[in-house]
Amino acid sequence: MKKSTAVYLVSIGDELLIGQVINTNAAWLAARLNEIGLQVVEQRSIADSKSSIESTLKELMQEGHILILTGGLGPTKDDITKNTLREFFNDSWRTDEQVLEILQAFMQARGRSLDEVNRGQAELPSSCSTWLNRIGTASGMLFDTKNGILISLPGVPREMEYLMESYGLDFLKSKFQLAPIQHMTFHTEGIPESQLMVHLQEWENQLPEHISLAYLPKAGRVRLRLSLTSPSKIGQEEFQLEAEKLQQLLGSECIGLNHQELPEQVLKHLIESGATLATAESCTGGNIASLLTGVSGASAAFMGGVVAYDNSVKIRMLGVNPGDINKYGAVSSQVVEAMAKGVRNLTGAIYGISTSGIAGPGGGTPEKPVGLIWVGISGPEGTYSRAFKMASDRSGNIERSSFAALNLFRKTLLNQWKLPEPTFWAFSH
Amino acid sequence: MKKSTAVYLVSIGDELLIGQVINTNAAWLAARLNEIGLQVVEQRSIADSKSSIESTLKELMQEGHILILTGGLGPTKDDITKNTLREFFNDSWRTDEQVLEILQAFMQARGRSLDEVNRGQAELPSSCSTWLNRIGTASGMLFDTKNGILISLPGVPREMEYLMESYGLDFLKSKFQLAPIQHMTFHTEGIPESQLMVHLQEWENQLPEHISLAYLPKAGRVRLRLSLTSPSKIGQEEFQLEAEKLQQLLGSECIGLNHQELPEQVLKHLIESGATLATAESCTGGNIASLLTGVSGASAAFMGGVVAYDNSVKIRMLGVNPGDINKYGAVSSQVVEAMAKGVRNLTGAIYGISTSGIAGPGGGTPEKPVGLIWVGISGPEGTYSRAFKMASDRSGNIERSSFAALNLFRKTLLNQWKLPEPTFWAFSH
Repeated sequence: MKKSTAVYLVSIGDELLIGQVINTNAAWLAARLNEIGLQVVEQRSIADSKSSIESTLKELMQEGHILILTGGLGPTKDDITKNTLREFFNDSWRTDEQVLEILQAFMQARGRSLDEVNRGQAELPSSCSTWLNRIGTASGMLFDTKNGILISLPGVPREMEYLMESYGLDFLKSKFQLAPIQHMTFHTEGIPESQLMVHLQEWENQLPEHISLAYLPKAGRVRLRLSLTSPSKIGQEEFQLEAEKLQQLLGSECIGLNHQELPEQVLKHLIESGATLATAESCTGGNIASLLTGVSGASAAFMGGVVAYDNSVKIRMLGVNPGDINKYGAVSSQVVEAMAKGVRNLTGAIYGISTSGIAGPGGGTPEKPVGLIWVGISGPEGTYSRAFKMASDRSGNIERSSFAALNLFRKTLLNQWKLPEPTFWAFSH
Repeated sequence: MKKSTAVYLVSIGDELLIGQVINTNAAWLAARLNEIGLQVVEQRSIADSKSSIESTLKELMQEGHILILTGGLGPTKDDITKNTLREFFNDSWRTDEQVLEILQAFMQARGRSLDEVNRGQAELPSSCSTWLNRIGTASGMLFDTKNGILISLPGVPREMEYLMESYGLDFLKSKFQLAPIQHMTFHTEGIPESQLMVHLQEWENQLPEHISLAYLPKAGRVRLRLSLTSPSKIGQEEFQLEAEKLQQLLGSECIGLNHQELPEQVLKHLIESGATLATAESCTGGNIASLLTGVSGASAAFMGGVVAYDNSVKIRMLGVNPGDINKYGAVSSQVVEAMAKGVRNLTGAIYGISTSGIAGPGGGTPEKPVGLIWVGISGPEGTYSRAFKMASDRSGNIERSSFAALNLFRKTLLNQWKLPEPTFWAFSH
């Protein structure tokens, strides 16, 4: 049993190299492998061509390496991974009867019969073990050789994930003695990376060598990842200690830990206090509601809300005063406060969050430029609003505004309805 | 001037190899480079370590190669790309005064002064040309050598995009004689890949050698990408002809072309006919509204709507009969039809789309399993509903449901309110 094992992820598909598809498989695989203690040393995306698959296999198939290939296993003409692997391993074809049965059942459940195209999916290289795919037509293939391990999976994310969860992770765990690498991620929102760094510098400089901190900025949020690279017992105790120190340094600016991001965190606070929330969204157009309902179990606290995109909807449904829209404009403190109150009345929710802003690219003026957004918060304790200035493109402004609104609400809840106090970071965007 | 030029994209960052960040830069770069006629032959993600950056540079820096590096240029300790490049090219440090000025102005505009951490961003390797970053602190660096071209860009997507659009694309166009590769993408929704293939087989088999078709499945949608690989005049005429044939074969199952995806297409139809739309979403939780408002100019036809997550919201706001919810359940034809009618009344929109379903993972029953979703459509011509069965996870079910609802609405509009006719593909999910 080898101690050092290097994982290479290889994504096959021209669609990746012309930028038509964003590679989400690599991130999913890397995260899962990391959890079980395997380290991805490199990820590559290569073309759907025999020569590029072959040259990558020649370079990377070595003792101590694990190659995980995704893509190119569909039933159509442009899918050539399977045949290239068969030739690389000097295999013949074999018909896998179990796969054939599953394919027949799969089609039957969908009211279709097994056509010639999909029947070909039961033909596999002779030397591989089959990982049965019950949610699609492409099997997983395992080539466990003395010159490294090769796993070939379909490129459709759900099917790839299914096969890794049903077979891949268990196989790798049983094959290698693995010590999980420990990570802990602290999420922040609205604080520039360099300001975080200044704030954390002194603590960061005294970190022991086997504990490291990484700054991962994304759309107005910075994630701080603390990693323990040597899994000793002392190391783990130190890691816990440093994690606590970091948490303390961040204080209420830590909006969530690990997989708990802001929407999860907001829902958790609400559920714990038995409160309910509704949203009234103009410029964010349903994105805040969508972020909240993306969390399983959201219905325990999130009631729904209004997408008040058109001003007539703000007036008719939320009871915004048309005079206020004329006088102050739809992007104003007055209007978002009325929206937040209005959606509480309308739904009976305890709290209301509202947004109105200029997402761009059009619609900006000198006084109200693209990226300006007003957020309103209303609850039994009162109603208030804050303006933010985002500096991104349309989708970036929508995403940042959604997170800024959720974070303002979170801070308001935490501070028991006092306006959020600036901590080390002056509160603004 | 070399004819053959191979582009390698190299993303630097441990966050990519532990799966914390999805690599969107690679797709953006690949798409833009493709548009100007450059072909990405491989994409790699490598670790934030000197040794992996160095070994990748040694392997890939060759005459005729263009390397585009992203990431590792932040002001913090874990960002080591710049120093590694300086050493690789045997450079010294130079202070770029223009960068220093921009950094000072950048901080001033944000009410901050230039700290030591960010001042270091004006220190650059001596042999590179600077690409000025006016929206962030990390400059772009160009090393135009006889052993290939190296471009180093920040990993923050907006800044990377800004630098490519301000400098990179123009530089590459002026440096090389490029003939753009032609692609055309046809979007479909709800049709299995193998059924599409059977339908298109005969036509696909007669395609000339320099025209190819690729199937790109994603979350219930399949994109068909037709590519012309040799840019001759005859080739272009043939390409046009084959594109028309494909369009005809797909008929009304083609939900959009190239960057025009379903939300854009639906808005276009609405704007052309002077109609307006509102949404009443339960299981999709604001995602349909969010997809529509993500399109710039959506306000011309999309009025907004209701996220009726809680049943009380369906009753209070949309006028759904509580008796119907008790009798048929919230996930039923009766309830979605009432929701679609209700949101039209409420907003004054001409058309209404509604959804109610079980996104999962909880909440399923034998009669109403996870993945079941009802879609309601209402307009002056009448109201009807359809059930779909999705087989994905929570986020997949939400996304598929949103697209299925928008596509049902699109077909209804196209068919002038006759129930969508099955074309070659039996209509169901």
